[in-house]
Amino acid sequence: MTGSRLDPWIDSYADRAMGMTASEIRALFAVASRPEVVSLAGGMPFVNALPMDAIASTVEHMLLTRGNVALQYGGGQGDQTLREQILEVMAPVGVKAHPDDIVVTAGSQMALDLVTKIFCNPGDVVLVEAPSYVGALGVFQSYQVDVEHVTMDAGGLVPEALREALARQRAAGKTVKMIYTIPNYHNPAGVSQSQSRREEILDIAKSAGVLLLEDDPYGLLGFDGTVPQAIRAMDQDAVVYLGSFSKTIAGGLRVGWAVAPHGVREKIVLAAEAATLCPSNFSQLTVSEYLRTQPWMDQVKAFREIYQERRDTLLSAMGQLFPPGTQWTVPSGGFYSWVTLPDGMDTTAMLPRAVAALVAYVPGTGFFVDGQGRDCMRLSYCYPSPERITEGVRRLAGVMEAELDLIHTFGRAPGHLPPGPATPSPDLA
Amino acid sequence: MTGSRLDPWIDSYADRAMGMTASEIRALFAVASRPEVVSLAGGMPFVNALPMDAIASTVEHMLLTRGNVALQYGGGQGDQTLREQILEVMAPVGVKAHPDDIVVTAGSQMALDLVTKIFCNPGDVVLVEAPSYVGALGVFQSYQVDVEHVTMDAGGLVPEALREALARQRAAGKTVKMIYTIPNYHNPAGVSQSQSRREEILDIAKSAGVLLLEDDPYGLLGFDGTVPQAIRAMDQDAVVYLGSFSKTIAGGLRVGWAVAPHGVREKIVLAAEAATLCPSNFSQLTVSEYLRTQPWMDQVKAFREIYQERRDTLLSAMGQLFPPGTQWTVPSGGFYSWVTLPDGMDTTAMLPRAVAALVAYVPGTGFFVDGQGRDCMRLSYCYPSPERITEGVRRLAGVMEAELDLIHTFGRAPGHLPPGPATPSPDLA
Repeated sequence: MTGSRLDPWIDSYADRAMGMTASEIRALFAVASRPEVVSLAGGMPFVNALPMDAIASTVEHMLLTRGNVALQYGGGQGDQTLREQILEVMAPVGVKAHPDDIVVTAGSQMALDLVTKIFCNPGDVVLVEAPSYVGALGVFQSYQVDVEHVTMDAGGLVPEALREALARQRAAGKTVKMIYTIPNYHNPAGVSQSQSRREEILDIAKSAGVLLLEDDPYGLLGFDGTVPQAIRAMDQDAVVYLGSFSKTIAGGLRVGWAVAPHGVREKIVLAAEAATLCPSNFSQLTVSEYLRTQPWMDQVKAFREIYQERRDTLLSAMGQLFPPGTQWTVPSGGFYSWVTLPDGMDTTAMLPRAVAALVAYVPGTGFFVDGQGRDCMRLSYCYPSPERITEGVRRLAGVMEAELDLIHTFGRAPGHLPPGPATPSPDLA
Repeated sequence: MTGSRLDPWIDSYADRAMGMTASEIRALFAVASRPEVVSLAGGMPFVNALPMDAIASTVEHMLLTRGNVALQYGGGQGDQTLREQILEVMAPVGVKAHPDDIVVTAGSQMALDLVTKIFCNPGDVVLVEAPSYVGALGVFQSYQVDVEHVTMDAGGLVPEALREALARQRAAGKTVKMIYTIPNYHNPAGVSQSQSRREEILDIAKSAGVLLLEDDPYGLLGFDGTVPQAIRAMDQDAVVYLGSFSKTIAGGLRVGWAVAPHGVREKIVLAAEAATLCPSNFSQLTVSEYLRTQPWMDQVKAFREIYQERRDTLLSAMGQLFPPGTQWTVPSGGFYSWVTLPDGMDTTAMLPRAVAALVAYVPGTGFFVDGQGRDCMRLSYCYPSPERITEGVRRLAGVMEAELDLIHTFGRAPGHLPPGPATPSPDLA
């Protein structure tokens, strides 16, 4: 099941390797790289908008002045100056901390891996949103964690459902170790939590004595320019906060971070040293110099405008072209809209036909561990141009219509809802 | 034991986090960074010898021509062009492979972590040299692996001792998953395996059906210019080979790789994607462009000459200054000599006094999991100048003499061996 029959090592792997099977995100890079395909699949930031000349001269200057540090090993916790700058970067989301509370990692994905490694025994439970970030599900499975999905609505994770899930797991004798949540511009759901809901979720976690793992790669990318306050801004002992430069500067640098309570931070650093010795000084000093010398917040604002235009284009095209009964979330920031298809359509089965029609998306099942999401898909508007987005939606609408014809041929009644958003858009209201 | 009593999460950690305690390498960066201390402790490459102007313009050119790739996410297995170039880099050690057999990682440390993650259940056994690389011991402990040390001599890992260890573990009902070895210029032992011994070790591993994990960061850094053949050159199914650019280009880039049999490689890629999504394109394209446009092998030769001069200086100073009875290995490449002190001296107890005398080393116990090595230390000659090395040895000799005086006061008889090398030096012979 998990390896080729020709693999001579098939009987030697650890139990945890049994859960390591290819995720649907695997094929995306290959598919998305074919220029004739409009990819609404991958969550690649639009790095073409970066001021490449300025970055090139920033890096050159950094190497000529601090090359001996940039090319050398560094400390396992990350560069001290960068950790101080990260505090400034987090000021808008309200996170107050000491530089010593921060661990720099090779993207926030690595921090997610390390926190799971130090907290979760095989069979421990992590509660996650339904749907949840596919990369997080991959981490949890790689440590043999039991994942339970908790219902979301247009306001994100539903507190009452979280309470029920905690009670259910405990009644079943399970140990719940973490609640994993993406409060802002959720990947893949495209929704955000209100301030009051954040407070309620934090209260639930604290009452249960369960760590809240807050993943916030998109927090600065709200289209109306307001920045929601992080849950970590309300409590420094109950929350591990994950941040990233992948969406505000560049994913190719692989620089993210965790803010953690003291004891947890100590263990993250030790686990990080075992995992990679230290984060790359080359990448860290590049980020540090970029933050110091470039108008980085202006660039974030430029990204917001680009992504907002693309979001608008996607919503408009879906409204015009998608068949009746299709529903979608209206993101007020970030990269994604979550689309639910009518008539019990199956997005996994439809994907090969979509790729044949030169458009790609991520089928909904990839964002669940339990087979949910068959009638859903994630559409990303971050990378393609507005023209390509419209063309991609047109192609996808054609594929969906053909699927629906097939369904009708077999006698199932189509829905008669008009197409439209399933969530209100705060910034369009 | 493993956390502060004030840590509110102390009861929530995974079992594996219990083994995550600070290693002796932790304090090294702090100690070594004080300019008045001569550090013979850290294994930091002498990056000051790098052609910084050329690297700066290489990176600038790379960003101006391929910045959209360098700053973007990439594939989990690593850049295709770089994997082809890695084949050329491995040609001198005799490793023949397909680019698809290679996984690029954030330093070879990460590959070591991932291979352990996919092979080792808690309680599985890994056989390692006595002493072994402290970073590997940290990985094994973080996955609750039982480590057994296998005797080394001046020719490296002793095959007969390896056979006995395998038999002993199996008689005890244990599952041995890997044999971890550093055949070239061992860290910390400073010794190398002969070709015939490599063949014997490979035979033992194959007969036992146990994976051989070959760690080779120093293979190109032999002082006489010959390059030993990798064990992987003899067998592609039984060996996972770990390579690194940290010592031939720069550790701060965090670019290493694994060469693995097909089925193992598939699992490494999946584990790597969970751990960090993908290696840094920024670092990978920097290495790729450096290999393509710069005389990288000339730079390796320049490193060899620098390290050989420093090795000579260290050996000469130890011969002149260390007390009778002190013994050391004579490395024919790499960064380290392993020193055994006379009269049962305790290098861990002595370290604070050494640092007070402004010289640092790594106590021997850090390279064992079982308390061995109290009378040993690792001395690194890679980073300090020859003048500083001599001064460091002089300071250390003074500390050792004072310790011996103390021992004599308490009545133990000193040894009367002359000081000298414990291994022959092939290139000085």
